[in-house]
Amino acid sequence: MNRMHNSAPEKNRFSSQSVLVDKLLRNALSEDIGSGDITTSSIVPEEDISEALIIAKEDFILAGINFAGRTFKLVNREVKFKAMKRDGSRIRRGTVIAEIKGDTRSLLMAERTALNLLQRLCGIATLTSKFVERVAGLPVKILDTRKTTPGLRYFEKYAVKTGGGCNHRYGLFDGLLIKDNHIAAAGGLKKAVKLARSGGDNLFKLEVEAGSIKEVKEALSSGADIIMLDNMSVDEMINAVKIIRSRKTDVIIEASGNVDLENVRVIAETGVDMISVGALTHSAPASDISMKIRR
Amino acid sequence: MNRMHNSAPEKNRFSSQSVLVDKLLRNALSEDIGSGDITTSSIVPEEDISEALIIAKEDFILAGINFAGRTFKLVNREVKFKAMKRDGSRIRRGTVIAEIKGDTRSLLMAERTALNLLQRLCGIATLTSKFVERVAGLPVKILDTRKTTPGLRYFEKYAVKTGGGCNHRYGLFDGLLIKDNHIAAAGGLKKAVKLARSGGDNLFKLEVEAGSIKEVKEALSSGADIIMLDNMSVDEMINAVKIIRSRKTDVIIEASGNVDLENVRVIAETGVDMISVGALTHSAPASDISMKIRR
Amino acid sequence: MNRMHNSAPEKNRFSSQSVLVDKLLRNALSEDIGSGDITTSSIVPEEDISEALIIAKEDFILAGINFAGRTFKLVNREVKFKAMKRDGSRIRRGTVIAEIKGDTRSLLMAERTALNLLQRLCGIATLTSKFVERVAGLPVKILDTRKTTPGLRYFEKYAVKTGGGCNHRYGLFDGLLIKDNHIAAAGGLKKAVKLARSGGDNLFKLEVEAGSIKEVKEALSSGADIIMLDNMSVDEMINAVKIIRSRKTDVIIEASGNVDLENVRVIAETGVDMISVGALTHSAPASDISMKIRR
Amino acid sequence: MNRMHNSAPEKNRFSSQSVLVDKLLRNALSEDIGSGDITTSSIVPEEDISEALIIAKEDFILAGINFAGRTFKLVNREVKFKAMKRDGSRIRRGTVIAEIKGDTRSLLMAERTALNLLQRLCGIATLTSKFVERVAGLPVKILDTRKTTPGLRYFEKYAVKTGGGCNHRYGLFDGLLIKDNHIAAAGGLKKAVKLARSGGDNLFKLEVEAGSIKEVKEALSSGADIIMLDNMSVDEMINAVKIIRSRKTDVIIEASGNVDLENVRVIAETGVDMISVGALTHSAPASDISMKIRR
Amino acid sequence: MNRMHNSAPEKNRFSSQSVLVDKLLRNALSEDIGSGDITTSSIVPEEDISEALIIAKEDFILAGINFAGRTFKLVNREVKFKAMKRDGSRIRRGTVIAEIKGDTRSLLMAERTALNLLQRLCGIATLTSKFVERVAGLPVKILDTRKTTPGLRYFEKYAVKTGGGCNHRYGLFDGLLIKDNHIAAAGGLKKAVKLARSGGDNLFKLEVEAGSIKEVKEALSSGADIIMLDNMSVDEMINAVKIIRSRKTDVIIEASGNVDLENVRVIAETGVDMISVGALTHSAPASDISMKIRR
Amino acid sequence: MNRMHNSAPEKNRFSSQSVLVDKLLRNALSEDIGSGDITTSSIVPEEDISEALIIAKEDFILAGINFAGRTFKLVNREVKFKAMKRDGSRIRRGTVIAEIKGDTRSLLMAERTALNLLQRLCGIATLTSKFVERVAGLPVKILDTRKTTPGLRYFEKYAVKTGGGCNHRYGLFDGLLIKDNHIAAAGGLKKAVKLARSGGDNLFKLEVEAGSIKEVKEALSSGADIIMLDNMSVDEMINAVKIIRSRKTDVIIEASGNVDLENVRVIAETGVDMISVGALTHSAPASDISMKIRR
Repeated sequence: MNRMHNSAPEKNRFSSQSVLVDKLLRNALSEDIGSGDITTSSIVPEEDISEALIIAKEDFILAGINFAGRTFKLVNREVKFKAMKRDGSRIRRGTVIAEIKGDTRSLLMAERTALNLLQRLCGIATLTSKFVERVAGLPVKILDTRKTTPGLRYFEKYAVKTGGGCNHRYGLFDGLLIKDNHIAAAGGLKKAVKLARSGGDNLFKLEVEAGSIKEVKEALSSGADIIMLDNMSVDEMINAVKIIRSRKTDVIIEASGNVDLENVRVIAETGVDMISVGALTHSAPASDISMKIRR
Repeated sequence: MNRMHNSAPEKNRFSSQSVLVDKLLRNALSEDIGSGDITTSSIVPEEDISEALIIAKEDFILAGINFAGRTFKLVNREVKFKAMKRDGSRIRRGTVIAEIKGDTRSLLMAERTALNLLQRLCGIATLTSKFVERVAGLPVKILDTRKTTPGLRYFEKYAVKTGGGCNHRYGLFDGLLIKDNHIAAAGGLKKAVKLARSGGDNLFKLEVEAGSIKEVKEALSSGADIIMLDNMSVDEMINAVKIIRSRKTDVIIEASGNVDLENVRVIAETGVDMISVGALTHSAPASDISMKIRR
Repeated sequence: MNRMHNSAPEKNRFSSQSVLVDKLLRNALSEDIGSGDITTSSIVPEEDISEALIIAKEDFILAGINFAGRTFKLVNREVKFKAMKRDGSRIRRGTVIAEIKGDTRSLLMAERTALNLLQRLCGIATLTSKFVERVAGLPVKILDTRKTTPGLRYFEKYAVKTGGGCNHRYGLFDGLLIKDNHIAAAGGLKKAVKLARSGGDNLFKLEVEAGSIKEVKEALSSGADIIMLDNMSVDEMINAVKIIRSRKTDVIIEASGNVDLENVRVIAETGVDMISVGALTHSAPASDISMKIRR
Repeated sequence: MNRMHNSAPEKNRFSSQSVLVDKLLRNALSEDIGSGDITTSSIVPEEDISEALIIAKEDFILAGINFAGRTFKLVNREVKFKAMKRDGSRIRRGTVIAEIKGDTRSLLMAERTALNLLQRLCGIATLTSKFVERVAGLPVKILDTRKTTPGLRYFEKYAVKTGGGCNHRYGLFDGLLIKDNHIAAAGGLKKAVKLARSGGDNLFKLEVEAGSIKEVKEALSSGADIIMLDNMSVDEMINAVKIIRSRKTDVIIEASGNVDLENVRVIAETGVDMISVGALTHSAPASDISMKIRR
Repeated sequence: MNRMHNSAPEKNRFSSQSVLVDKLLRNALSEDIGSGDITTSSIVPEEDISEALIIAKEDFILAGINFAGRTFKLVNREVKFKAMKRDGSRIRRGTVIAEIKGDTRSLLMAERTALNLLQRLCGIATLTSKFVERVAGLPVKILDTRKTTPGLRYFEKYAVKTGGGCNHRYGLFDGLLIKDNHIAAAGGLKKAVKLARSGGDNLFKLEVEAGSIKEVKEALSSGADIIMLDNMSVDEMINAVKIIRSRKTDVIIEASGNVDLENVRVIAETGVDMISVGALTHSAPASDISMKIRR
Repeated sequence: MNRMHNSAPEKNRFSSQSVLVDKLLRNALSEDIGSGDITTSSIVPEEDISEALIIAKEDFILAGINFAGRTFKLVNREVKFKAMKRDGSRIRRGTVIAEIKGDTRSLLMAERTALNLLQRLCGIATLTSKFVERVAGLPVKILDTRKTTPGLRYFEKYAVKTGGGCNHRYGLFDGLLIKDNHIAAAGGLKKAVKLARSGGDNLFKLEVEAGSIKEVKEALSSGADIIMLDNMSVDEMINAVKIIRSRKTDVIIEASGNVDLENVRVIAETGVDMISVGALTHSAPASDISMKIRR
């Protein structure tokens, strides 16, 4: 197996057996199956058994194979699903990713839901891996954002991690991130930071968004743990990094805004610690994967 | 207002007030908000009121503005959401799409979920409209598929329709579509059609997938109402259309498989009635949209 | 086994293992069990094991035996439920339909919910079979309607099919049926049909309700695939069938309205293709079935 | 208004606004509407407003009018629903039961679900009222059983009460009722009663099922508060009542088993206090009710 | 094993496998686990297996061990949970209550939820047992009330029973209890009782709250089955019991209001049948219990 | 108004209008109301209107008044609920906390659920405020733990904050806390810290549990942001604080384990930054509060 990255993908918070996953998969299944598969049920006998293969139709990084397997299980616990590749593997077109055996009706009913999820997650992992490759050798991390598909964040953050990226905060509840709107509401950056620090929330690191060198300095002096350089030019970023590093060595620097595969390496070379990329989850094209029944 | 297409987008089955929509939006909101917005709640006073604008950061076709509005309402019924543009409109970069007024906390808590959904739906409508434009003047429809994001089919099929496309069957439950696996299980195309016709299901039109001229002929003689030309070359399609039209004038012909903006017009010119495009929903990049609080 | 009809009941869209079924059965169980079975739990020891029989107390057509079995399983997975007869079988009074073995508490807690469902479904299948018998030898199908018990449509449509009937559209989402109210809203039958045909919905057959010969003709010329003769006299129906058949051979004709066991054969003899009967699901008396614990 | 019975129907536990009701109605609505009303949405403009009438097509006792109203509200809160008759009223064929005003789409989407529920509940109330009329003048109550439609017990028990009947225990959780199976498991009627009395459950009245005079005597001496005469002949019942009344004046006597409109008065004349009738809920034919849009 | 009381705790309505229990435990688990255990998943390998012990850190009465076990199972069905003690047992500090074996991640994810529930239930059982001990030898029962933790009534009533107490009515739906507010609304105690008796509800015993000797007499003459002496002094209670017993021997007398471990025996000695204690469920301190992983 | 603390209680993440809150309150309501309030519905007319007061029966700190209000609203939106005191206020026995007006049935149905929640939250806030008072003048925070009641964490953490305490991490998902089990699984404290730091999780502060001076030193050198002194004696804590402060000034020190009102000040005087107290949520006795209907 040819793994994309050093941090093993199984070292993450995501489990294919969680209550959350089952709820999401059941919703997706009932969206497709609804009041029943009228084609299959009229043609395929209930007792008909098949073997099927899940096959890559193009190259990609595998992500979500166990979620796909779980989808089949939720239609019928008796279905056997055997993953032939592990998440994080680099898959070549034509590769058999999984072998499935069970009653034909269940296979056909789960097929599209399983593939729709899998295609999407592989697409995300693959795009992530491209960003990661572009910055190879540099001490920088590629991060996701909260710009995920509604309802699928759990899966999509998993795919980013599987593709070699790292996860930014999961939601509004597990990270302090002060943005322009917060600063305006508080009446200034320092006031905002002070308010956020009150109430026991010094248990969280505090991230502050800065859109200019002036704001970077203000964030720095107010005691931010992480400073996000928001939509800055590369020159501004170089300047910001220099200022921050010269004053405080343990502040984490994040670059954000309009990052693409063209500019990511230049941004990385500014010396920032992390680069967050919304496109990883909101604009990754799906990977092409199909299921084929063997008879 | 500059509408994309003739069929008014409000002529569809999708409502921004359905039980289904609320359930999906609530799930998405709780995914982001979870145990609370720790940044906003520590900085923004509960009674603080703001006005905000939703602004286009690039050109696109608007889709889902009422779903976005509903998202804000679900966080706080008191929030006023005023759509400045209607779905289906061609939006220019910089346009204000909606004005929102309400307590600042609710605005910030709903922001990302509403935008994540809106960005995705506008992306789909925009891509759909591009396909529709490419075939302008030809008597052909652009259709979606079941390759939608798990859990979001209702929204995504709406976006396709808003972008000027049409909806193929919603799921396994509302259309008879015989594929290769069904044919194999039945032991032949004709047997499969006969089985599907038994049991009252002649209330549905019957679609049969054909991968070769031989199968097209077989489908035709077995009485299919719709024939899907699956992954055929343009020459094969031209041939298939000629054969079908010469024998039976009211059979609907669908082209499917590897359709892109480059080849869609050539495919349309073969004389098929409908072209289905999986990429509309599985690979449309998100439109860039943001929310700005005015102070 | 003495089967009611040719189309095997297992050739249908309904599965006793679907997510939908479990949800409905769990709701029904909790409706009956609520905060616990106070009688049984105070009298029957937790470890007490029993065998029980499900017995017919009158003649009927069996429908729903696997749903009944699933009900017991949902109370306790360890319960063994063995169906002695298959759905669609003609059952004689006194026949043992199923044998159950498990802890007595679970058996008593599931009993009423399982029987309430089974009694109702057998009642529907039995009434359906009577209608089917009345039209024996004629090329006509007996159909159900949407007049089902709220929440039980999945089960009740299954029972109709098991009794030898066919299923009309499942709900508002999987069939185009233009009724008087639609015609009035559109400003005429032809306008209504034209609107319904726009937007890709030519993937569905189009059914039009006609209450008079005039409307039959209009429906015919507007291109309806199915024409429903609504509440017509037998003479009108004969006339309507003649007109339709003379003009277009492949239009499906449905008779609807006030059909009962007395008049169904006469209606069938008019030459219609399908007769829909609301009473199948809204007024079928329950079959008498009981559970007996053997000690 | 001509009321069926003295006990006002609003004196009951059932509310048309409870969480329970909304959940059940939402399930029923989504069962019918699913992914959208494809006919109405393609024909009726979103802004079209209609007035509609709910009209009796035969005579019955009204039950459930507010549940019907709630159904429309759940589709669209803006719909105005005005009940013209109160539950418990004797309705004549042709009577307008309710006036509705709102957008046409919502009216057509809610119509069938509302009517399916209403028809069923009126059917139950009507059948109940017939039983109540048959025993007019006698000091006896007509009771329902747990033989209700799975998922609809709340509504059906309401309909029984509205028709002039009384409610037996709601489920396994709110009444102690010792049946043959409990007696067998305990090793005798007295042992069963003793077990049921232990553990604080003397807060409930204790009902014991007796199938013979011998069991009646045993139940009596063991201290039962209520004795159910199960499937006894009229002569046996007369004898049982005499024995019970002679020994203990405050024991409540219930007759149960194969009660119909023919024999209910004879049974009532035996002097029992209550007669329970499963058919009230499991075999009542639906009342004929329709919705008509006025234009 | 040293059992607290005679009535075996398994003789109750509560099951560790009910639909209700699973729903509550799943909610509790997702409250703690949310989007994933970020510490454990980054440190403990997915395949790591551990054995763990649940250990008493102080003396208490065990209650809820099977609910704790179920919690682990819901995180991962493969986890083996072996209860070493039965509910109702008197546990000594240091005792191993359960042995668990499974993958370390699941053990750590379920730990807190399982312990939080177990600690609370043991606390309730232990406090209940203290009240029961105080009245040892007297013919009186210790009852719980409806003053339970929102969402946990099922578990807490179980714990009371396990601690040797009895359960009062479960909720508003399974017991008639007329309080001062009902009396005021009805315009007098007798009117209230008469209303409550109408409508078939003589199937329930009727309890009336009395705050004075005058009300006790009124309740008695109106035919109450149970009289609750509400917040009376011991002298008043003695008087009330004398009056009730002299007139009607089978009326059940309940004492309620400000009962604590100091005064419970004196109250019991007044001759009442039952004493209800809100503190059992609303103010019992948690028992100290921990989980230790053996390596 | 006499506020307990400086940090305003409305500066928190908890809202009385969230989706989460409604779900929890609805569950609690249906637990109590179930199939209906049989007493109230038989006695109190549907149209009867009442005013009611919520009254303190002892002294406490108010917490959760808006959650109580929401409970009434969920039973009937028409009910008017007016809080007379704000959360965080010191309430004296006899004080009217809220005035309610609405239909009597709804008031009686919501009463117990609203009070059960309110009593519990006031109890927690009150106990928290006592701990806070004990450490008055010292630069230390009182924190809660994850030892909350299953299903009520959102409410209970709110109550702690309202009582003047601070919130520790909400669950397993929003804080890195390495405990002994993690250290053992990783094969040493340093390895555990290193693993936790990998994968982007340096966005979280890292807390390490230390049970000895040796472990404190190890945690310090491995780069922990927060060190928890677990179950140490006061002397050990003094030593640990000295060591930590001498080496690294910005490490946060938490004391944990067996903290009570007696020892909390001594612990605070060791110089730790935070003291976490499980008893705040698992063992706070309920405050005594009642609802009185005025007539």
